[in-house]
Amino acid sequence: MGYELENMIGLLERTPAALNTLLRGLPEVWTETNEGENTWSVRTVVAHLIHGEYEDWMPRSRHILQYGETQLFSPFDREAHVQFGKDKTLSQLLDEFAKARAKSLDELHGLKLTAKDLERRGQHPALGSVFLSELLATWAAHDLTHLHQISRIMAHQIREAVGPWARYLGVMRCAGHSEAA
Amino acid sequence: MGYELENMIGLLERTPAALNTLLRGLPEVWTETNEGENTWSVRTVVAHLIHGEYEDWMPRSRHILQYGETQLFSPFDREAHVQFGKDKTLSQLLDEFAKARAKSLDELHGLKLTAKDLERRGQHPALGSVFLSELLATWAAHDLTHLHQISRIMAHQIREAVGPWARYLGVMRCAGHSEAA
Repeated sequence: MGYELENMIGLLERTPAALNTLLRGLPEVWTETNEGENTWSVRTVVAHLIHGEYEDWMPRSRHILQYGETQLFSPFDREAHVQFGKDKTLSQLLDEFAKARAKSLDELHGLKLTAKDLERRGQHPALGSVFLSELLATWAAHDLTHLHQISRIMAHQIREAVGPWARYLGVMRCAGHSEAA
Repeated sequence: MGYELENMIGLLERTPAALNTLLRGLPEVWTETNEGENTWSVRTVVAHLIHGEYEDWMPRSRHILQYGETQLFSPFDREAHVQFGKDKTLSQLLDEFAKARAKSLDELHGLKLTAKDLERRGQHPALGSVFLSELLATWAAHDLTHLHQISRIMAHQIREAVGPWARYLGVMRCAGHSEAA
């Protein structure tokens, strides 16, 4: 997993810049719209990603290293980002995400995790026993699930504009599978 | 649709740089792997995107403007990219995509399309009558469907590494819906 952790980091360190390149300056019709009532806009997704940096990935990693399985993770409030995201522009959120992610990765490097550390376990309130290695892989996968979601939200905005081609476009038929983001 | 065409262009001009930022230098375990037999790697997807620039979007746009519905589009060979992609590195393909897309968009700007042009129709060999506006929206949606696919291919590589979190990650449960890419 030492090798694989490098692979996770390779992705994690690229995501903020990739989102920045894709999203900054895009017409708001792509980024401020959503998929219908009670769904997220692209801006909301970026706010959620920032929230994960503050409350989820490194805090839970430290939790595992400190408490192991003796203490449950604090539940992650998946709506909390709504509060701190609501008064910020997408540009501000993209800047904040880049900064927060860089800080998280600095901290991760500072832990100098060993193969043995990665096999340490924590207790997830719903999933039960989980490895630190699984938490860190999930961090990368979480970036990907939200990149997947972003492409789907954006495609939703032009589902009628594409006319009959919609049937050829998989993203138009993605039902959005996440229970938890 | 004049307004909306600007929105399509806003996305189309960002995709190559966004993919470059996400993918260049990533460990090959993300980009040279696929989702199983007869599926595409991330590198294959980029080759396919280049092929669309050469054979699909602008050629078909010109076809509509020149022939209208009097002549079917040439069928698009969705496997042709395999030939010209196979001996190129991902970095080479990313460079080529950026160049090909920039050239396509230059050409699109050069057409100075009017609202009336966008309502011109062509004959798709399978879909029948289509508007130029639909073709151009599909170009943008096609970028999104492949961004969606790329995130899914990459997530596939860590489906086991995430352990029990897989059930929370929508991208892990995306069946890949495209009939045609």
